[in-house]
Amino acid sequence: MSVSTAAADQSLCTPLPVLGRDVTVPLVTGGEVTYAALDYAASAPALQRVWDDVAAYAPYYGSVHRGAGYLSQLSTDLFENSRVTVAEFLGCRADDQVIFTRSTTDSLNLLAAVLPADCEVFVFETEHHASLLPWRDARVTYLNAPRTPGEAVQTLESALAGRDPYGPALVCVTGASNVTGELWPVRELAAAAHAHGARIVLDAAQLAPHHPVDIQDLDVDWVAFSGHKLYAPFGSGVLAGRADWLQASEPYLAGGGASRKVARRADGGVDVEWHDSAARHEAGSPNVIGVYSIASACKALTEAGFDSLVAREQYLIGRVRDGLAAVPEVKVLSLFGDDAPRVGVISFVVDGWNSSHFAAALSAEYGIGVRDGLFCAHPLVRTLLGSDPQSQGECGAPEAAPGEKSLNAIRVSFGAGTPDEHVERFVRAVTELVRDGARWNYRTEDGRCVPAV
Amino acid sequence: MSVSTAAADQSLCTPLPVLGRDVTVPLVTGGEVTYAALDYAASAPALQRVWDDVAAYAPYYGSVHRGAGYLSQLSTDLFENSRVTVAEFLGCRADDQVIFTRSTTDSLNLLAAVLPADCEVFVFETEHHASLLPWRDARVTYLNAPRTPGEAVQTLESALAGRDPYGPALVCVTGASNVTGELWPVRELAAAAHAHGARIVLDAAQLAPHHPVDIQDLDVDWVAFSGHKLYAPFGSGVLAGRADWLQASEPYLAGGGASRKVARRADGGVDVEWHDSAARHEAGSPNVIGVYSIASACKALTEAGFDSLVAREQYLIGRVRDGLAAVPEVKVLSLFGDDAPRVGVISFVVDGWNSSHFAAALSAEYGIGVRDGLFCAHPLVRTLLGSDPQSQGECGAPEAAPGEKSLNAIRVSFGAGTPDEHVERFVRAVTELVRDGARWNYRTEDGRCVPAV
Repeated sequence: MSVSTAAADQSLCTPLPVLGRDVTVPLVTGGEVTYAALDYAASAPALQRVWDDVAAYAPYYGSVHRGAGYLSQLSTDLFENSRVTVAEFLGCRADDQVIFTRSTTDSLNLLAAVLPADCEVFVFETEHHASLLPWRDARVTYLNAPRTPGEAVQTLESALAGRDPYGPALVCVTGASNVTGELWPVRELAAAAHAHGARIVLDAAQLAPHHPVDIQDLDVDWVAFSGHKLYAPFGSGVLAGRADWLQASEPYLAGGGASRKVARRADGGVDVEWHDSAARHEAGSPNVIGVYSIASACKALTEAGFDSLVAREQYLIGRVRDGLAAVPEVKVLSLFGDDAPRVGVISFVVDGWNSSHFAAALSAEYGIGVRDGLFCAHPLVRTLLGSDPQSQGECGAPEAAPGEKSLNAIRVSFGAGTPDEHVERFVRAVTELVRDGARWNYRTEDGRCVPAV
Repeated sequence: MSVSTAAADQSLCTPLPVLGRDVTVPLVTGGEVTYAALDYAASAPALQRVWDDVAAYAPYYGSVHRGAGYLSQLSTDLFENSRVTVAEFLGCRADDQVIFTRSTTDSLNLLAAVLPADCEVFVFETEHHASLLPWRDARVTYLNAPRTPGEAVQTLESALAGRDPYGPALVCVTGASNVTGELWPVRELAAAAHAHGARIVLDAAQLAPHHPVDIQDLDVDWVAFSGHKLYAPFGSGVLAGRADWLQASEPYLAGGGASRKVARRADGGVDVEWHDSAARHEAGSPNVIGVYSIASACKALTEAGFDSLVAREQYLIGRVRDGLAAVPEVKVLSLFGDDAPRVGVISFVVDGWNSSHFAAALSAEYGIGVRDGLFCAHPLVRTLLGSDPQSQGECGAPEAAPGEKSLNAIRVSFGAGTPDEHVERFVRAVTELVRDGARWNYRTEDGRCVPAV
């Protein structure tokens, strides 16, 4: 992929307007600067369009489903139409269900709760903890980190070949790594899973904000993603896909909305008849604003067009990678190598720098917001850093002294709302910090590295 | 309680400004009217103050906890300060934990997930399904509907007296019924529970928006409530209380944020060390806006003063109850009788009317939004209606023909944002509909009763 050539492409779209684009923050060295939000992989700012939609709707907010009033019916229609919008955004099959959750973590915990008895789960150790850890009642096979997409497919093939071919199995895989941004061979992994009678769920938390995700084209059984990474930070997420496991299991939460009929039995107990629809797993009053905001974001991204969004993001990725490559002290973390296709998520360490210190200086001296730590993907980051898993401190606590191998990393991430200036400033900041050192003193407070005052 | 005397009290506060107070809706009979939102017990409109706080914060929204940027640290402080605000709002003990969930339903499902082994649960059949159903792994004793607060305490005492006094036990009770609005004797039930070595959780979903809830004064072990009923409809809820059961159990959701350290083991498995703090049960990116909106609502209600809010609400309750009492065809549903203290939640049936039809006419002809159905409290509503639990159709489906006993009820509910005009219009509408009949024809469509066109 020749990303640098895009730099001269005058046809690149402008960033989509996001909230906070004019927010200024103070610099420890004096003055103020517009904030460069480069932590999209954790939480992206709201699209202005999403905020405007939410603000326009908010006065019309009402209770959904059984409310008889005008605003209740309007809100119910808006809620259920949002489900249709998300299904279209994901290219769902006609009989797929779209369940609204609170986040990708919640979506995968929901799926874990509906696994058939004796289900085996296969998951790469390189996953985010949200994909790695929810399978608590299943037999889990953790697959070693592959160093090429092809090796990922081979590793999965080998693992699945050894399993009981008649029992249920699930593969859980990310679409784009939350650490390296690298794309995983989802279609090939799905084919391998299905060839061995297993199902597959795609963790699209980092993929959906950057690339179109088509559940039928990828031939995955479920997709999970979060609103707060998709420019809709109002507390909702999605699990979409096959209805059968969802319908066959007990409800995720027990309560109103999920229950169709509840009655005392003659013996004093209680009989419950649960819904079969998506409501089965959506007990309690739904987060109508959160759900609507996701639908709004899906529409906004679709209308902006992923082709131009991807082109622009690839240009930004090229600028960041070119800039980091020019600083010999910087090591970019990669599982699949320089040529691997990726989204705007790049992690790195800086020789001679504690990562928390470096991230704090980017913030305090340049107004740039990145993230430092292990990014809720401890085994992957340790593999990439070549560090001993037993020797680690807590997630994110600054341990590395100058000149020592860093035990944490720094992550810069961006997306549809990122202007060129943010990545240009980031590249300049990295270059200057490595060349000149920090201009301020820093200390550790409550586990954070902060400017000393 | 002499509520009518408050009518002449000139010191009553004005309604708190809420979103949607100027929204107009069309009437089937022609023209438009401002919408009377009288379904607060399902979802209350956002306080204008809450919306303004959210709107002011939204451009500063950032990823929390491990973000190094200025907005991430601002958002983290705002998120954690919201926890402190909620703890103060509830009068928490110093060692209580405040866990942010998505709703009361979620809070009670969380508590159900952390029950000690062999925990017994005691719950009245009169509870909302969110309180009735989550205890799926426990031995549950369903207590029959009491007809006085004293009988409630006696019933609980008797049930607890028969239990194994050495095993763990939990009582779950509502503070105010979501059907009748009647207050339950929480302090006395808590004393009874504790006298028998049981713990108690208060479902304050309907209480917290109307009355101060002090966890120490009531001496309950946990409190659960929802943002969307507390004028903060952004998808968050709260479980607050004793930390020990919460810390001793597996995390509610498995994923990032809840995990402190994750490492591969030599045998290929994965070791996880979970947080002990509230984060243990808050895996995934938190709903920062939802949480902040709850804190904003807590502050707004505290600053408005519950004394004046309660006085004003009692006045409105008096107006509605006096108005309904003047219509002989109306029967108000009550467990504890006319003199029982209550919040602004009143359910009733109208002789000769299908409840769904009546609610539809209130909406279409008067612009009034109420709710009809069984209110996710099927056993209670059936007890109050005197109907056979085995003969019921689905929740909310219109069944009763004119002149027959209604199988559903109508619920009107209101709160801090309700102007006098809404309840005056409601009383007039009920009076006119019963006296004159509906002015339009209605039909059933998709389970809803709607105007025929």
